[in-house]
Parts: sequence; structure tokens; C-alpha cells
Amino acid sequence: MGGDDAPGSIVAGAIEAAQQFRGELKLILVGNQEAIHRVLPEKRAAELGIEIVHTTEVIGMGESAAASFRKKPDSSISVANRLVSKGEADAVVSAGNTGAVVTAALLGLGRIKSVQRPAIASVLPTVSGRCLLLDVGANAENKVSHLVQFAVMGSVYAEKVLGIARPRVGLLNIGEESSKGTELTQQANKALAGVGDALRFVGNIEGRDVMGGGVDVVVCDGFTGNVLLKFAESVIGVVTGTIRGEVSKSLRYRLGALLMKPVFGTLKTKMSYEEVGGAPLLGVNGTVFIAHGSSSPKAIRNALRFAATSAREGVVAKIGEELARELLKEEAAG
Amino acid sequence: MGGDDAPGSIVAGAIEAAQQFRGELKLILVGNQEAIHRVLPEKRAAELGIEIVHTTEVIGMGESAAASFRKKPDSSISVANRLVSKGEADAVVSAGNTGAVVTAALLGLGRIKSVQRPAIASVLPTVSGRCLLLDVGANAENKVSHLVQFAVMGSVYAEKVLGIARPRVGLLNIGEESSKGTELTQQANKALAGVGDALRFVGNIEGRDVMGGGVDVVVCDGFTGNVLLKFAESVIGVVTGTIRGEVSKSLRYRLGALLMKPVFGTLKTKMSYEEVGGAPLLGVNGTVFIAHGSSSPKAIRNALRFAATSAREGVVAKIGEELARELLKEEAAG
Repeated sequence: MGGDDAPGSIVAGAIEAAQQFRGELKLILVGNQEAIHRVLPEKRAAELGIEIVHTTEVIGMGESAAASFRKKPDSSISVANRLVSKGEADAVVSAGNTGAVVTAALLGLGRIKSVQRPAIASVLPTVSGRCLLLDVGANAENKVSHLVQFAVMGSVYAEKVLGIARPRVGLLNIGEESSKGTELTQQANKALAGVGDALRFVGNIEGRDVMGGGVDVVVCDGFTGNVLLKFAESVIGVVTGTIRGEVSKSLRYRLGALLMKPVFGTLKTKMSYEEVGGAPLLGVNGTVFIAHGSSSPKAIRNALRFAATSAREGVVAKIGEELARELLKEEAAG
Repeated sequence: MGGDDAPGSIVAGAIEAAQQFRGELKLILVGNQEAIHRVLPEKRAAELGIEIVHTTEVIGMGESAAASFRKKPDSSISVANRLVSKGEADAVVSAGNTGAVVTAALLGLGRIKSVQRPAIASVLPTVSGRCLLLDVGANAENKVSHLVQFAVMGSVYAEKVLGIARPRVGLLNIGEESSKGTELTQQANKALAGVGDALRFVGNIEGRDVMGGGVDVVVCDGFTGNVLLKFAESVIGVVTGTIRGEVSKSLRYRLGALLMKPVFGTLKTKMSYEEVGGAPLLGVNGTVFIAHGSSSPKAIRNALRFAATSAREGVVAKIGEELARELLKEEAAG
């Protein structure tokens, strides 16, 4: 029930996923049955193998996350998390209020043992492929130990879900030298360098390196990551808006644009969040994906696919193992 | 002598400026005379009305700013600042090491009375024009009072140099509500809202709003601003690289691109730092502009133009007046 166009886009995305990934994933739509049946009649749902779990309450985009979670135990996000917690579902995908999704996951699933703070990880395009940026907004302020855990969690996800062997991890900073930056990034640089073989830490990177293709995982505090991600998502609009404005000025440009149409399609696809669909909430004890409030059916379909891959690859268990190993090492050392 | 291609690009940019803005500005090249004369013979310099002040020392990009400033009193950046301090020049433009430029300005010119910290302000394109982002790297960490002063200084610059009447000021944050964000941004939101009529504060803005055209001045700490600016500057490369890669795949696309060539030129111009050339270092007691290390002659030419405008419009004096007024108000209130 979360998202700007719920449940329309969500259901449409689920239908696409059910058709395209038939046999690979089993879908459960959690929400108001009546509203869902308006866009997906009972018979059609049965044909597609989509199950519906009815809920009665809805959390608005403006509502306080913690309060609404407690006041509304029968909201779709609460119920979906309970399904995962009870083992009746393997993953949750939601396009709702980020704060509500994070709170519902923390209260409903809890954190993985030894995780201090969960992090939202988002995939960004690079010149040569893609990279994972985290945290992009589960936290406003972070400590050094959080950033180290983000690095480990991001590495596991990049390896298991994005298929990148031994992902290169960079610390987002305002200079390459380890002495540069804030108190937080200076200390985080040292701590990350001290992790050793479990992490392929390549050092500090700057804003210009995020899309440069030199790193696979970019670690930063939730404030910086959130600002950067939202900025990045808005850039393609400025670029296409500028091109569109110029093209309209002459017949020659319009003809050129017509010939080049597929090129702009590729550009839009590359720069668009639709391809990755959702961002994993790493560190909670279950697979949770947060999709844009304005998700298109295609974005929802892709979020469902990545969530299924993440659950299948055992990202949650692997994060638990890696962090426990780190903790043991620290205890042995200290 | 600062910059990747010094003094070649710097001198070439100065020549362009001397030709284009003849009568509007008088140029002094500060640096190694021999190296300058290799690209600008004495006779030609005289024809263009360009004066040369010889210096013997150079600060490298890797050198510690404070130490090198003290050890090398005859570096081009030290001497240029002294010319301003003695009233023999109205502004400094440098493409050197940012740390060295900031240090040289702070030690050579000092801060404007009542300024706590200087800030580097950079112009970014928006969907409808441009906006000023500050601080983009004079500071790694900031306090609430710094951000309030950045807002005032940015407003003065936007009005006097960018020609924006009553500039709208936004605080970069991770949510629109005043309760969102870090301790710093929460308190800064309150402090900015309390400034009153002297500042047209429109509240928090998010990463996606920076280029949205809704604000003229974006205030943030130096860490966030630096990451964001460097990221923004790298985006156009990813976009054009993607387009170029796709276009090369088919004759049809190549033809389309040929027809659309001027459109891409406009896009590049809009997204490029060359148009604005340099970023003012606001808060120091003189007009100082920092240009990219990799500045093209065009970027240098534009930096010189903006520096001249800034000096002519009395930005430094106006910042002093506005901040003194703020201080008086605070004293009266507290």
C-alpha cells in the first residue's frame, strides 16, 4: 500500500515479475484486498500464482514512522515484515515511506547479530558498469564503526547479488590522502585499512570517483549518501530537459534526435533508478528492499527480482558471518 | 604558476581576457618571467597591456599549504595576495592547489571582520538557470554559525555578481521538514529561519532540489559540498561517454549525432565548469578566485571576468556590512 501510485504500480510490477520470472519467485501481495482486486481480479491472480494477504491499515507518507508502526499493526508493511519473520516469506519489497519501512524492519525483524546500524545501499551507474553506495539514508549521523560495517555489508551484497568478485571498497572523502577529511573519515580510513584481507579497501575516493569505475562499493555516512543519491537521480532530468529544449528549436535537430532515439533510450536506462528498482536495507535480520515512492511497474519488477536474488544468495546469513569474524578478530587483537 | 598546465593555459586565458574585456580589466601575470615569456613574448604582453610580476618560487600540488606558504614567500600565490593586500591589484585568480590558495589568502589578506570561516562558492547549472553552492571545500567540518554566515555571504555574491535580486537560500538536508537531518542541519535550519528579512531563507532542500531551479543559494558544510561538486562535475563525462559509446555503434546514430552536434555543444557548455571558470573564496578580506587545476584558457578567461565583476561590485565590503548588521542584531537580541 506504500508509494505514490499504490497499489496500481505495485500490482502492475508484481504481474510483470510473475510473468517474467515464473518458477523463480512466488509473489504475495500484502495490502487491502479490495483495492488490489480492483487492478488484479481474483481469477487472474490465481492464474499468475499471486497470493494476496489482506490488511486493513495504511501508513501515510507524512506519518511518524515509529508511532504509526505501533499504532497500526495491520498496515501492509508491518504484516509483510511479520511474514518474513515467521518464515512465510523470504523477502519484503516496499515503495512506502522510507522511515516507516526501516522502522518496521527494525521492530519486526531486528538487526543481524553484531550489526550496530542498518544501511540502505543504492546502485549507481559508472563509466564502466555500476557501483554500490551506502548508506543513503537509514542514518543521519554515523560513527567510525558503522562505516566499517557498511563496508563489510556492501562487499557481501556486491559479491553475492551484483556478481562482483572481491569488490573494491572506497571511502568517500574530500581528498585521496588518508589524512584528509573530517574526524569521522580520517578515523574511518584507518579503521578500514586495518580490516585486512576480508575487505578489499582501496582507500579514499572523491566525489568525482564515484562514477569513475575504479570502485565497486562506496562507503559514506547516511547524510552524505542521501544528498548524493538524490542529486544523482535528478541529474538525468536536467540533461534530458536541456537536450529536449534545444532539439525543439530546429527541424534539423529534431531529425537528428529521431535517428538517435535508441541512444537516448540507452542513456535513460543507464542513468535511471528503474533498472535496479529498489535499494536493499542491509543489516536487518531479513531481506528488505526499499523502492522509490514513485516506482514504475518496471522498477517494482526489478526490485522483486533483486530481492529474490538477495534472499536466494543468503546475503543476510553471509553478512552475519563476516561481521562475526570481524568481531572475533577485534576481540583477539584487543 | 599553479595548475596542471601552468603557465600555458593561464597565460592563454589571460590573453583571451585581455582581448575580450579590453578596457574593463587590467591584467597582471604573477609568476616566473622566463616561463611566461616563453608563451607570451614581452612585446606582445606590452601590446595587450599585460603586466608581469616576476616570482622565483613555486608551490607544488602535493605540498602542505601552510608550511609551503611560510617557506616560500616568493611563490606566485603569495606575491599575488600581497599585491591585493597592498592595493596594487583588486583581485587574485589562481588555478593552484586549493589548500595553498586558501592559506595564502587567509595569511596574506586575513578574514573580513566578523567572518568565522571563509567558504568556497561554486556555480552549478539548474533546470532554469544556475545556483550557488557553498561551502565546497574551504572547510571539512562546520558549525551552525558558519552555515549562517555562508548563507549571508552566498546571498551577497548571488545578488551582486550573478545578478539575482533577493536570492532564495536553501539549506541542504536529507528531508524538507525542519526536524530532519543531523544535529548540525537541524540547528542551522532554526538559526537560518531566525535571521529574518536580511535573508530570503526558503527552508531545507534535498539533493534532488539543488538543480531544480527553486533556490539560488545552497548552503552546506564543506565536506558535503565538496563531494557534491566533484560528483556533479564528473556526471557530464559519464553522460557524454555513454552517448559517444552508443553513437559509435551505428551509421544511423552517427548521422543523427552529426545533425545534433550544436545541441551537445550547448549541453556541454551548460554542464561545464568552464563557463563559470572559478569559484570565489568568500569571507577573506579581498577578492580571491580559485580556478580548477585543469582549467582551460576559456575557464581562466571567465574566472578573470567574474573576479573583476566581484571586485567592481564591492562584494567584500558588502559581506562585511551584512555580517556586521547580523552581529549587531544578535547582540541586541541576546
